[in-house]
Amino acid sequence: MRAYKQVVERVEGQILAGTLKVGDRLPAERDLAVQLQVSRAAVREAMRTLEAQGVVRSGVGSGPDAGTVVSALPSEALTRVLRLHVALANFAMDDVVAARVMLERSSAGLAAAHASAEALAAVAEPLEAMSGEPDRHEFNDLDTAFHIAIAEAGGNRLVADMTIAIREAMRLPILRELEQLGERWPEVRTRLCAEHRAIHDAIAAGDQVRAAELMEAHIHSARRLLAP
Amino acid sequence: MRAYKQVVERVEGQILAGTLKVGDRLPAERDLAVQLQVSRAAVREAMRTLEAQGVVRSGVGSGPDAGTVVSALPSEALTRVLRLHVALANFAMDDVVAARVMLERSSAGLAAAHASAEALAAVAEPLEAMSGEPDRHEFNDLDTAFHIAIAEAGGNRLVADMTIAIREAMRLPILRELEQLGERWPEVRTRLCAEHRAIHDAIAAGDQVRAAELMEAHIHSARRLLAP
Repeated sequence: MRAYKQVVERVEGQILAGTLKVGDRLPAERDLAVQLQVSRAAVREAMRTLEAQGVVRSGVGSGPDAGTVVSALPSEALTRVLRLHVALANFAMDDVVAARVMLERSSAGLAAAHASAEALAAVAEPLEAMSGEPDRHEFNDLDTAFHIAIAEAGGNRLVADMTIAIREAMRLPILRELEQLGERWPEVRTRLCAEHRAIHDAIAAGDQVRAAELMEAHIHSARRLLAP
Repeated sequence: MRAYKQVVERVEGQILAGTLKVGDRLPAERDLAVQLQVSRAAVREAMRTLEAQGVVRSGVGSGPDAGTVVSALPSEALTRVLRLHVALANFAMDDVVAARVMLERSSAGLAAAHASAEALAAVAEPLEAMSGEPDRHEFNDLDTAFHIAIAEAGGNRLVADMTIAIREAMRLPILRELEQLGERWPEVRTRLCAEHRAIHDAIAAGDQVRAAELMEAHIHSARRLLAP
């Protein structure tokens, strides 16, 4: 087995066994290298693997306190993985849209059932800015923020993280579609804003079924509106 | 920015822009190091990041042909990320179960609608072995294989990969629960086998609604049966 893999397997094994927990500090690079009889370069390579998985963060603190800490960054890791594989067309766009419908139906229903006043305010906030005259880039960022706020409001961390990862993976493809709209842009923007507002209102009214139905209709409608 | 990150961002940028595709070979380590004016160690660290994301595979071929190739391994990458974060308790078990119900309802319904004869045979195969006298470890492997075969049969690659990642992340926690069953084990095994058989039959009959309902009931039933 290659040297860095030994280090990865040691740390992953301790995580799976429950002996390493979020917030725990890993031994210093040179100590890990001595313990496992590998080079410091191999330890550094292993840390890159674990960082990419969102389970450690390097360079926390400075001076003698600098080190690598076990972390909880699953959303970032999932987002990076999905974004790259969507770009590589490892997932067909229809499959991505179907998965998005399933996740966001669930998120919208959960948000209608559970959203706190604070979470609901976070859903409403991008809608205000969208009703101004955002350009396509700003609109896309606000649209992403709206869908992420609903996922967060639902309160299921895993569903939210998968929803966020898929929406983030769509950010670039959707921006390209927005840029190709030409003179249809104001009309499409008005239509999407109205759909967003209706979803917000169903969530605010606590209507789970309607929130889920409107979300599904919105995702399909947006696909049709943006299709070249 | 740290040197390895420059390399990661260069390769990710080319993937997102569509200039690097699955099957393309990256430049040799020493060439990448010269191009980006970083050390070869930094290039190696970057490859560990990209490997962990399932977008490249190193050490393909040998001799002068050895190299790093752009790859499509999203399922493995998602599985490793979710397994580690479930172990770190970054996701509450109730949230994981709710996400699993949502995904596997969808998978079972898709499988009932779309499963080929071959895919259906792959769903049936672990059931045969389970009806023998597998020990808990074998049972858990067969159970995992059954749920994965249904996800594959549904034909949505992204839904399948997320389903697989979550079921794989549950493998160790479920094995621990099976081991704590004591003398209830034969009764629980018989019950779970009957539920699996009913799900298989609904999929084989092409009954989407029934397949989805039975899958949801099975996941909740298994939670209750295995709860300590």
